[in-house]
Amino acid sequence: MEDTTAMDVSEQDDARLLQRYIDACSNWGRWGEDDQIGTLNLVGPEQIRRAARLARQGRTISLSLPYDQSGPQPGGFRNNPQLYLTATGTDHVTGAQDVLPAGWGPAKGLGFSDDVLVMPTQCGTQWDSLSHIFWNGKMWNGRPADQVTTKGAQANGIENYTGRIVMRGVLVDMPSHRGVDSLRPGEAITAADIENFLADHSLGVEPGDALLVRTGFMAARRDDWGDYAGGHAPGLSLHAAPWLREHDIAAVATDTWGVEVRPNEISYFQPLHIVSLVHGGIAFGEMFDLDALAADCAQDGVYEFMFVASPLPLTGASGAPVSALAIK
Amino acid sequence: MEDTTAMDVSEQDDARLLQRYIDACSNWGRWGEDDQIGTLNLVGPEQIRRAARLARQGRTISLSLPYDQSGPQPGGFRNNPQLYLTATGTDHVTGAQDVLPAGWGPAKGLGFSDDVLVMPTQCGTQWDSLSHIFWNGKMWNGRPADQVTTKGAQANGIENYTGRIVMRGVLVDMPSHRGVDSLRPGEAITAADIENFLADHSLGVEPGDALLVRTGFMAARRDDWGDYAGGHAPGLSLHAAPWLREHDIAAVATDTWGVEVRPNEISYFQPLHIVSLVHGGIAFGEMFDLDALAADCAQDGVYEFMFVASPLPLTGASGAPVSALAIK
Amino acid sequence: MEDTTAMDVSEQDDARLLQRYIDACSNWGRWGEDDQIGTLNLVGPEQIRRAARLARQGRTISLSLPYDQSGPQPGGFRNNPQLYLTATGTDHVTGAQDVLPAGWGPAKGLGFSDDVLVMPTQCGTQWDSLSHIFWNGKMWNGRPADQVTTKGAQANGIENYTGRIVMRGVLVDMPSHRGVDSLRPGEAITAADIENFLADHSLGVEPGDALLVRTGFMAARRDDWGDYAGGHAPGLSLHAAPWLREHDIAAVATDTWGVEVRPNEISYFQPLHIVSLVHGGIAFGEMFDLDALAADCAQDGVYEFMFVASPLPLTGASGAPVSALAIK
Amino acid sequence: MEDTTAMDVSEQDDARLLQRYIDACSNWGRWGEDDQIGTLNLVGPEQIRRAARLARQGRTISLSLPYDQSGPQPGGFRNNPQLYLTATGTDHVTGAQDVLPAGWGPAKGLGFSDDVLVMPTQCGTQWDSLSHIFWNGKMWNGRPADQVTTKGAQANGIENYTGRIVMRGVLVDMPSHRGVDSLRPGEAITAADIENFLADHSLGVEPGDALLVRTGFMAARRDDWGDYAGGHAPGLSLHAAPWLREHDIAAVATDTWGVEVRPNEISYFQPLHIVSLVHGGIAFGEMFDLDALAADCAQDGVYEFMFVASPLPLTGASGAPVSALAIK
Repeated sequence: MEDTTAMDVSEQDDARLLQRYIDACSNWGRWGEDDQIGTLNLVGPEQIRRAARLARQGRTISLSLPYDQSGPQPGGFRNNPQLYLTATGTDHVTGAQDVLPAGWGPAKGLGFSDDVLVMPTQCGTQWDSLSHIFWNGKMWNGRPADQVTTKGAQANGIENYTGRIVMRGVLVDMPSHRGVDSLRPGEAITAADIENFLADHSLGVEPGDALLVRTGFMAARRDDWGDYAGGHAPGLSLHAAPWLREHDIAAVATDTWGVEVRPNEISYFQPLHIVSLVHGGIAFGEMFDLDALAADCAQDGVYEFMFVASPLPLTGASGAPVSALAIK
Repeated sequence: MEDTTAMDVSEQDDARLLQRYIDACSNWGRWGEDDQIGTLNLVGPEQIRRAARLARQGRTISLSLPYDQSGPQPGGFRNNPQLYLTATGTDHVTGAQDVLPAGWGPAKGLGFSDDVLVMPTQCGTQWDSLSHIFWNGKMWNGRPADQVTTKGAQANGIENYTGRIVMRGVLVDMPSHRGVDSLRPGEAITAADIENFLADHSLGVEPGDALLVRTGFMAARRDDWGDYAGGHAPGLSLHAAPWLREHDIAAVATDTWGVEVRPNEISYFQPLHIVSLVHGGIAFGEMFDLDALAADCAQDGVYEFMFVASPLPLTGASGAPVSALAIK
Repeated sequence: MEDTTAMDVSEQDDARLLQRYIDACSNWGRWGEDDQIGTLNLVGPEQIRRAARLARQGRTISLSLPYDQSGPQPGGFRNNPQLYLTATGTDHVTGAQDVLPAGWGPAKGLGFSDDVLVMPTQCGTQWDSLSHIFWNGKMWNGRPADQVTTKGAQANGIENYTGRIVMRGVLVDMPSHRGVDSLRPGEAITAADIENFLADHSLGVEPGDALLVRTGFMAARRDDWGDYAGGHAPGLSLHAAPWLREHDIAAVATDTWGVEVRPNEISYFQPLHIVSLVHGGIAFGEMFDLDALAADCAQDGVYEFMFVASPLPLTGASGAPVSALAIK
Repeated sequence: MEDTTAMDVSEQDDARLLQRYIDACSNWGRWGEDDQIGTLNLVGPEQIRRAARLARQGRTISLSLPYDQSGPQPGGFRNNPQLYLTATGTDHVTGAQDVLPAGWGPAKGLGFSDDVLVMPTQCGTQWDSLSHIFWNGKMWNGRPADQVTTKGAQANGIENYTGRIVMRGVLVDMPSHRGVDSLRPGEAITAADIENFLADHSLGVEPGDALLVRTGFMAARRDDWGDYAGGHAPGLSLHAAPWLREHDIAAVATDTWGVEVRPNEISYFQPLHIVSLVHGGIAFGEMFDLDALAADCAQDGVYEFMFVASPLPLTGASGAPVSALAIK
């Protein structure tokens, strides 16, 4: 697919760097050849119990954007969610439902609404599946990419994540750390940034944790999305990949469309996806709404919580919407 | 809407009974005129903390059916979920993705899958919203039904539940209690049945609890759904409505399509919905997969757990799919 | 619905004018109480034979825009058509189709593509149905508007047009007549304009004819649609309504989104729809691509042709896409 | 793709026969390397003028099934068409449309309906495109099958047919010829059958004609489709392929789901598609409703007519719905 003879010197450097990170961060085979959940293997009973103990105050905070036409998509390849009503209250009050469907007889005063949802799985708050990204014909754990056909993913689909993603969550609130409302497009968050934030808040991370990284970019664009979805954005640095691997972070979610900084730091598109998702098997969460959580954490000074974010079991899908919660 | 002069004696009795239950069980106004979440008001910090303490063993059990073509819908009014791939691994390996979309440049080895979901919100495991059912032109809390138009529900939509439904859950496993694999269509579960089950397992219920009632009917039909969705079914008795109200149950979910027994016990369609959802404001969950949970509870004898089942925030929708979890 | 007491003097004048046009142009009851096709009743065997005789040169010209993502819709209420592939050639060449679906056995070299179309019926070249527009609770022929529910139109749906709309067509090419590339937004086309054009080209119109009116606005916006769909536009004057009625024009189609000039000439939205579609029962065609036809007519000087434009029989729909043809 | 070493004697015979037919019937290259319309090249001005002269009586007959939930699809891979209303008359009469969308101001009495269509392109009356079927990695005119990706067909898509398919049509009404209501599943129609029918009705065929072949199977199944779509069916014999080629038939349409007889006559799936569509480039029309046309032809004894059946220009699609007409 790639004609290496045509690469110039800088591209060759990029290719070597990328390969070095892949080699350093790969978890292929670590949990067996059949594994389809990657770093979620790091979350066991102890991690779940530990997470539940963080629900100290009995407060839940939703981390999901509304799924509707106010969403961030500009349309075209991905649209915002559409809801089509197949039964309405206006039908009910005008008598159009006086005979119920399906042979259920006369309505006798009862009425109902019903609807159909049409949405790209990647249009709003969502987890990428391990079948979402390929690298040179392969996806997570070395499976061939052509296992993802028009019938969906035969392996690594998002349904493998369902029933999981219950663990300790830690919020890394970068804009408050830097004293700004929002990081700027192109501004990268490094491993040192994360470490500094954690140290400042006397926090450590442990294997199986979820790292929620707030850039402030959703807050900055919420009223006028512009090119929020797909455009330039702040985000994680490619060079943070080894840190994620060394600390056995199970999941990373940001308030941006693509987790990593855009434009990318090397001449490859979304290289952190290539390293940490395809090879590392880390769960990537995108467009998580971390604003209310950040306000809450700023108020009580507690940046850790029970994180519950099991995606819908959409068989064979490249990702799935999720009603994600922080429970404190 | 209903011409009472045309009712015969038995229908008049039914109408009086229904009205009596409505009067006895209504919560309209209990949490203010603007309330849109009904009995979820009963879940506060104490209830959430209590729930989290039930996560003793660090084990999660998924309660959601896969959302795919293997689902229970016969098609027509409601179809099973469809996933349309808008990018595939087969496109990637044949070179069709060598130029990335959106001006992102050459792929240089990277590929991706993407997809669009089309699904009725009421087709599988789902919560009804408080805008799903109307009674004589009104919905929960007395709001006019014509607030639900083709644009969705202006009030009582399912998005009001999002970020909630974290509480203690109790499983009532009726078929194991009766020594059968599954209750039969038309077989009703009464308040006495629930009380007996709880007493046998030394359990009580408290305000704000979620009651998960298993009939075994999903297990019976899982391999060949037949008329599972929409047909005759076991389920809760209408006459259990006062018990639910007296015990301030916040949410009820079953492994059937419609919570209550079908055919209904009186000459009204889904009268428990009329009484307990429209007037009681209780959250109704349908087609929850309780089989793995029942097996787990039978094994360790523990029928209570942390229940986390926040629905997707589908603005204005009549219901929403959910990745529901029991955490023990 | 309309509180006449609140209208100022100018609005009262508009209301009176609108009512006068309605009275003058209404065809309600003209073809019986059950009629659902309006002025298409004017097209009988003689009109069809006459149309066929205009196919003198044996040349067909397509009048339909492509239905795809390049269409004029800005998204939101109406999107451009989307095509979802459910089987691809890339699946075939990678071997994913080696076993055929539906128990059809091994592919043995055969492969196939398949796809699903999602499109608003009003998103591109289309006929409005007589159930598309209501006026004070009624639609064409006096039928109550609430016969159009979430189940579609019980009467006046677009399927009534199917098998029809075969008649003589006459092109009125206004920009060439005025020596401009395109009429401007807000520029109205009057009955006198039409008459002048016809006289200049030695043409008359007869009952049952279709009038295709080109404004040039599609040509002006084709490469960058902007607010073409829904925004200001040139188009027919409301005051042309009596002329259409007197000449018993059966169908009118333009190269704009809404047939009539926008902003409208009086303080009512789309008053020509109210007069000529709701009350006159005239078939309205929108976003017809008349550019190739205009070029052809300019070349041979023949502005009449066989017009064949039967819409898809979408039961109960507000409109339907159409593969419209001029045959010369 | 095919391992010839594993074929038994009978399969080898089938493979040789198929190849012989392919060699005999191929039109690859006949109209240049860039051609994407196949035998529609046979229809020129003379053919169109000749067709128009057949519109003698001024009568149109629709040949398209309604596109709605009453259609022949069993669901699953292909569903029947669904229409989602995005605006209704019930919304209008209850006042929900009193403010118009898109900043158009107050409704002042006007209302409207709107809707979205979701349909598989192959679900009802439709033309196959020349990108619908592949044979060993290639489609019509030798183009590689992987030009059909999730983005649609880059070549041979159905939009190439739009503006065409206006020619003389000839109805071959087999069941009336055989004195039965319907041919049986598995019953093949041979070249001799066609010739006999034509001779009996004193008809010839000429290059560029469309052949509409009625089996009666739609009439037999219309009230209860059963496995009509995808199951066993009467249809054209594979062995009719050379006759179609020799007579330069431009288009063939039947009242069955797949044109050719099922089960197929040799051990290949839909071999007539392989020979006559992939290699011959003949337009294949499926699920055409020929019953009203057959009744009309039986009455006046005229089995030829002007056939107008231009499909919707769905860019890159595997097929398209069509409002097909016979004009006599």
